[in-house]
Amino acid sequence: MLLLPEDSKSVVEVRVRFNETDLMGIVHHASYLVYFEAARVEWLRRRGMNYASWASGGVHLPVVEAELKYMSPARFDDVLQIETAVTDLRRVSFRFVYRILLGDKCLATGSTKLACINDKHKIVPMSAAMAAALSAGENVAN
Amino acid sequence: MLLLPEDSKSVVEVRVRFNETDLMGIVHHASYLVYFEAARVEWLRRRGMNYASWASGGVHLPVVEAELKYMSPARFDDVLQIETAVTDLRRVSFRFVYRILLGDKCLATGSTKLACINDKHKIVPMSAAMAAALSAGENVAN
Amino acid sequence: MLLLPEDSKSVVEVRVRFNETDLMGIVHHASYLVYFEAARVEWLRRRGMNYASWASGGVHLPVVEAELKYMSPARFDDVLQIETAVTDLRRVSFRFVYRILLGDKCLATGSTKLACINDKHKIVPMSAAMAAALSAGENVAN
Amino acid sequence: MLLLPEDSKSVVEVRVRFNETDLMGIVHHASYLVYFEAARVEWLRRRGMNYASWASGGVHLPVVEAELKYMSPARFDDVLQIETAVTDLRRVSFRFVYRILLGDKCLATGSTKLACINDKHKIVPMSAAMAAALSAGENVAN
Repeated sequence: MLLLPEDSKSVVEVRVRFNETDLMGIVHHASYLVYFEAARVEWLRRRGMNYASWASGGVHLPVVEAELKYMSPARFDDVLQIETAVTDLRRVSFRFVYRILLGDKCLATGSTKLACINDKHKIVPMSAAMAAALSAGENVAN
Repeated sequence: MLLLPEDSKSVVEVRVRFNETDLMGIVHHASYLVYFEAARVEWLRRRGMNYASWASGGVHLPVVEAELKYMSPARFDDVLQIETAVTDLRRVSFRFVYRILLGDKCLATGSTKLACINDKHKIVPMSAAMAAALSAGENVAN
Repeated sequence: MLLLPEDSKSVVEVRVRFNETDLMGIVHHASYLVYFEAARVEWLRRRGMNYASWASGGVHLPVVEAELKYMSPARFDDVLQIETAVTDLRRVSFRFVYRILLGDKCLATGSTKLACINDKHKIVPMSAAMAAALSAGENVAN
Repeated sequence: MLLLPEDSKSVVEVRVRFNETDLMGIVHHASYLVYFEAARVEWLRRRGMNYASWASGGVHLPVVEAELKYMSPARFDDVLQIETAVTDLRRVSFRFVYRILLGDKCLATGSTKLACINDKHKIVPMSAAMAAALSAGENVAN
């Protein structure tokens, strides 16, 4: 079972939208990447990092690898808890790991490796401020 | 300017997700239909109506008409206020009207006409309970 | 019934993808805006206009109004015919109108009004070349 | 480098849609799961398997695992070649592997593990016909 590092973990809540389901009556598997993305934007915000202002300044954190395991379906209107944490912090990349829970039940796990790029889409080292924030716990910035 | 009936109005907040933008750097125009949908599900919930339980019971409210006007772009991470109200309540259909605000600024307006159908996709009259709830103000159910 | 101007009309084929459906088992209503968009990009291409090269040059045609009427559901894997034509051609804006057909059956109609903007998101007059192309029939460019 | 088994491979073409991009100006990473899905539906069709008729009959092949590696961005209007093949064929599950090419350049690779379920969302063995088709080359059915 995937274990998230406790000191890095934040829990972000997402309610499943109607359009995120498919004809199987469950959440479409691509929607989980969207939930992961929403969760990591919020994870960053809770540590004082505003991803939108980076993006408008040309600094991006594109996903370079993603892995997902689907254990049990999510359904329309479910309120999902997305546990999110950072691992594998390096000079130009790091990884977010995720667990999606509905109550006590783990529906899915996953990870995304992100690289830091500039406005010319070249990989660049993270700033010291970014690296520090990525190592911080949630309560540091609040 | 679109005026929403005050006694029917609810305001639902949505934060723009990264994937809802497009290469113009703004929210893609189809995303607004998704915001409208999220807003009306919440509108219904605040009046004691659980759309998910209807849907799992085979009662649906498909969109049969939609209209949108885009005045000013929304951007990634914006927290949008979606004003939502019901109008034109009839035996088998009604209309939701919407205004999307960012602070004081109205970014978009729209409406969706919904019909009531059963699990065989046939149009059917709304139940008395549904019609009553659709006429109710937000505070009635709380 | 919506009638498209014959001399402007192109027919673009789209196959419904699995993720475009929702838990009702039919195509989600927001997907039709995506089909319209795919159809007008192809409409432009058939008249010698490459929307991607405009976009990379900072010229955009954002949707400023949209209207949709849904008559009958589309389903996964359906091959839809999207009839597309230009109307209401003006100095800074014009309208695409659409009919979505499955065989002989019209499933939906709609229109989108587009404005011409520059890379600062300011409305600007269309170039003469663009205006000419928007008035052209499909076979002119081929 | 990911190598696809030649005797199982099909190549499916997908043109990038405007809405599949994001504010980075490139295709959003979740869109690749959608391309994979479109490719495997077409892969099945070329071997005489109609996934839509299975789905309407209650047999589904949900994704239970997915992996993606993103090497180089895809952009609006790119015509992508999606190489698709089956591996790891077992009694109740199998894997599709994918390479997304733009001309000679490999933009992304990935795989999805699918399980066979019935209309009660229970995992069931594949039918002999399905297993045979999954082992077949593209030209067998044509």
